[in-house]
Amino acid sequence: MSHPLTALADVLANHQLPCEIIGDNRLSVTGVATLEEARPDEISFLSNAKYEEALATTKAGAVIVATDQQVPPGMTVLRVPDPYAAVMVVMVHLHGYRRHPQVGIDSRAVIDPSAEIGEGASIHHGVTVGSDVRIGRRVVLYPGCYVAAGVRLGDDCVLFPNVVVYEQCILGHRVTIHAGTVVGEDGLGYAPVKDRWHKIPQIGVVEIGDDVEIGSNCSIDRATLGRTVIASGTKFSNLIAIGHGAKIGENCMFVAQVGIAGSVTVGNNVTMAGKVGVAGHLTIGDRAQLAAMAGVMNDVPPDTKVAGQPAIPIKDALRSFSLTARLPEMAKQIKQLEAQVEALRKALDARA
Amino acid sequence: MSHPLTALADVLANHQLPCEIIGDNRLSVTGVATLEEARPDEISFLSNAKYEEALATTKAGAVIVATDQQVPPGMTVLRVPDPYAAVMVVMVHLHGYRRHPQVGIDSRAVIDPSAEIGEGASIHHGVTVGSDVRIGRRVVLYPGCYVAAGVRLGDDCVLFPNVVVYEQCILGHRVTIHAGTVVGEDGLGYAPVKDRWHKIPQIGVVEIGDDVEIGSNCSIDRATLGRTVIASGTKFSNLIAIGHGAKIGENCMFVAQVGIAGSVTVGNNVTMAGKVGVAGHLTIGDRAQLAAMAGVMNDVPPDTKVAGQPAIPIKDALRSFSLTARLPEMAKQIKQLEAQVEALRKALDARA
Amino acid sequence: MSHPLTALADVLANHQLPCEIIGDNRLSVTGVATLEEARPDEISFLSNAKYEEALATTKAGAVIVATDQQVPPGMTVLRVPDPYAAVMVVMVHLHGYRRHPQVGIDSRAVIDPSAEIGEGASIHHGVTVGSDVRIGRRVVLYPGCYVAAGVRLGDDCVLFPNVVVYEQCILGHRVTIHAGTVVGEDGLGYAPVKDRWHKIPQIGVVEIGDDVEIGSNCSIDRATLGRTVIASGTKFSNLIAIGHGAKIGENCMFVAQVGIAGSVTVGNNVTMAGKVGVAGHLTIGDRAQLAAMAGVMNDVPPDTKVAGQPAIPIKDALRSFSLTARLPEMAKQIKQLEAQVEALRKALDARA
Repeated sequence: MSHPLTALADVLANHQLPCEIIGDNRLSVTGVATLEEARPDEISFLSNAKYEEALATTKAGAVIVATDQQVPPGMTVLRVPDPYAAVMVVMVHLHGYRRHPQVGIDSRAVIDPSAEIGEGASIHHGVTVGSDVRIGRRVVLYPGCYVAAGVRLGDDCVLFPNVVVYEQCILGHRVTIHAGTVVGEDGLGYAPVKDRWHKIPQIGVVEIGDDVEIGSNCSIDRATLGRTVIASGTKFSNLIAIGHGAKIGENCMFVAQVGIAGSVTVGNNVTMAGKVGVAGHLTIGDRAQLAAMAGVMNDVPPDTKVAGQPAIPIKDALRSFSLTARLPEMAKQIKQLEAQVEALRKALDARA
Repeated sequence: MSHPLTALADVLANHQLPCEIIGDNRLSVTGVATLEEARPDEISFLSNAKYEEALATTKAGAVIVATDQQVPPGMTVLRVPDPYAAVMVVMVHLHGYRRHPQVGIDSRAVIDPSAEIGEGASIHHGVTVGSDVRIGRRVVLYPGCYVAAGVRLGDDCVLFPNVVVYEQCILGHRVTIHAGTVVGEDGLGYAPVKDRWHKIPQIGVVEIGDDVEIGSNCSIDRATLGRTVIASGTKFSNLIAIGHGAKIGENCMFVAQVGIAGSVTVGNNVTMAGKVGVAGHLTIGDRAQLAAMAGVMNDVPPDTKVAGQPAIPIKDALRSFSLTARLPEMAKQIKQLEAQVEALRKALDARA
Repeated sequence: MSHPLTALADVLANHQLPCEIIGDNRLSVTGVATLEEARPDEISFLSNAKYEEALATTKAGAVIVATDQQVPPGMTVLRVPDPYAAVMVVMVHLHGYRRHPQVGIDSRAVIDPSAEIGEGASIHHGVTVGSDVRIGRRVVLYPGCYVAAGVRLGDDCVLFPNVVVYEQCILGHRVTIHAGTVVGEDGLGYAPVKDRWHKIPQIGVVEIGDDVEIGSNCSIDRATLGRTVIASGTKFSNLIAIGHGAKIGENCMFVAQVGIAGSVTVGNNVTMAGKVGVAGHLTIGDRAQLAAMAGVMNDVPPDTKVAGQPAIPIKDALRSFSLTARLPEMAKQIKQLEAQVEALRKALDARA
């Protein structure tokens, strides 16, 4: 299906993202593609300066660019203040989100008679739903999902294949969990008695808010007591480990392989880049930004960027990185100073 | 159900953990909760000084504390030498461990006729058990578990949903494996021949001892030849990678996202904090402690604490961290020294 | 079954790996084992100098060693230029690769009528195959695998239990994926609008070349637009995260827990050791070698070895590691220089 640029401009305006079409405003496009791969009937975008030179060679019919972006002569562009937000809106309009097949409740799913399932749910073959589970409306459970006794799932949740939710955990509305993720396994709770580890029952739960999306193959520990929390609006990539009793705030974003130890408290709108680790019992303030591979050993105040291992404010970390690179030079300077001081001493002695 | 504190004191005494009740020894409690969340009919505990101030505001009916812990006046406390061990015993007494539903052998499990399954086992729907498998008594296999040909599982093992055990691997008694973990996949064994990788058959196995607990979404490579070993009493958190032929000793504890390369030998009672990495073919001595994110490039002697990347003794690592932070100051000192030496040289020349 | 050494020598010669038998060339062996565990009817090998002393105590009937390796008197050896390649060939000859049971298309698999499945395929119970899927000849899908709508699998692919491939992804021939790995989940694509994250549809795919092997519990994001690529001949270990739109070249080898951010381009024959992280949008040149735990923040040129966080050329990294260890000494030297300079200044003043 073909969409006139003018129609896309209307859609953007409806999202409070007004744009200006420069060039051929009679053009239509069928989809979104990268600058490199777009065909003349597709629209592309530039939101990262790194790809600016691809503007010169793209075959895209039109390109979404920032208001002040220089472009080759003759290129049809939609100028917007925030190209990334605009392309999001255009992609949703042209392509939409994944549609899940409506399968109803497959007779090969194994559902405890005491479970309650909302209308419009799609429960695939091979799914297990335990006793006293409450599942909201239009929930999709793909094959191989295991939803243990007492779990609550809000409306419009989607669990991709082989997701496991342990007993009593609570998910809000519109929670999406990608394949292979495990929610509510026991945390690493053992008391050492005479060189051996004695298991502490993990009787808490995991509670996930609304509009949370969790990537694939993540592991979210249940709390020893009380709750492990992932608050509303937070998004996780893949292979993330959350320790027991951790409390993650709203609208956070964690990149792949982040690891949060037990009893950590993370504020709202915190971003953690890939492979960040946070040690146990720490507090990370609202809007903190943790650089990739940061190893956090101390509390991080709100609105602070940190980097390094141990993590320190990012300006200090960058200076430390560059001074570390200057260490050979510093070692040489010290050696020269020692020689000069010795020479001065001898000169002074010679005059004594 | 309500439990008098005096009964809990008896239970603790039976575990060689005698306690002293200070305050109202006629109290009863129904469960254990955190200081923050406990109600007056619950017992709480303080084992980490970080949470000491919560003593002032907790609504818990009683609190397990260390023998010398200061507490607010009027608080009922159980004083014990080791509060963490005591709360473990109390939690087991009041809450017990997870109970697994007894389902027998579900007709929808797919079990090779040559497999032998001990009495009291619970094999859920959707489980696969291969040829010549031997499964002990009271073993629980949750849906989606795959137990390949020739595997041995001891008594009282529990495999949570979607655990996969490749062929010929051997698990001892009372082994618990959380959801999504894979045991016995091929290690990364390839010989380079003319810029291409040629796969080396991985004909070894994984052998896991007794009383081992492994978290969710871990990956334990089978050996190329011989065995990858996880010895008795060892506990793993989530997302841990163990390379082919590694041998992990008894009663170790590995926190989430630890990675052990192939052919590493780890002694007994070793603890590795989150995200530790150990390079191939190294030896880690008994009771070594590896700090979070340590990158181990050399053998670690017994009873040694290491940290950093590359990992060094923890005292040196901490000194190095703090001196790295002092690098800007050191650079400034060198610059000042150079100026002073130059000034001295000129002064000396002037007198010549 | 017993194999004469002379027959093994013929096999090696057929693989352009000629060997010389020194010792008892009438010997036969039944299998390959480590130096430590081999019995007199087994052959072993030495390819890592670290294990050289095991030569003195091994009970192996014969040992594959390098051409110039010193060995105990009387030991029967096969001398070859590349022992590791030779043992690979011998293991394949004596033990072969894993054989997959031929189960045909199990009636308990759930296969969309529009899917096409090549001859000789083994589709186990509990597998899901979506609409319009095309599956090549002799493909093996173990229980719990989920192959979504529109996926293409080439000939001789093997998906171990509980592998999930999201819609429209494309796998070449002879692709092996170990248990629990997920291919094609959504990347972490959100546009921030007023402190909340708005999901960008992830309409791209994952494309995997021929002869790729991927370990267990990995996560390979689909592209936002276009393709995430894993090119032919590349091998991954376990728990690896590949971000959306990344393009990994041919014949690469990635060790466990590597993480590649979105839109990274990796050349051919690149090796990444355990836990390496590469930040978004970077380019890693052909044959680059990234040391364990390297944190790559800049492009890496071809044929370059890097290490450290941030990653720098490995020689500089090693010098920086050793100078960091020398920091206490440098601090002391600076302090001494300051004292000496002060003494000189006073001496000079005294003569004024």
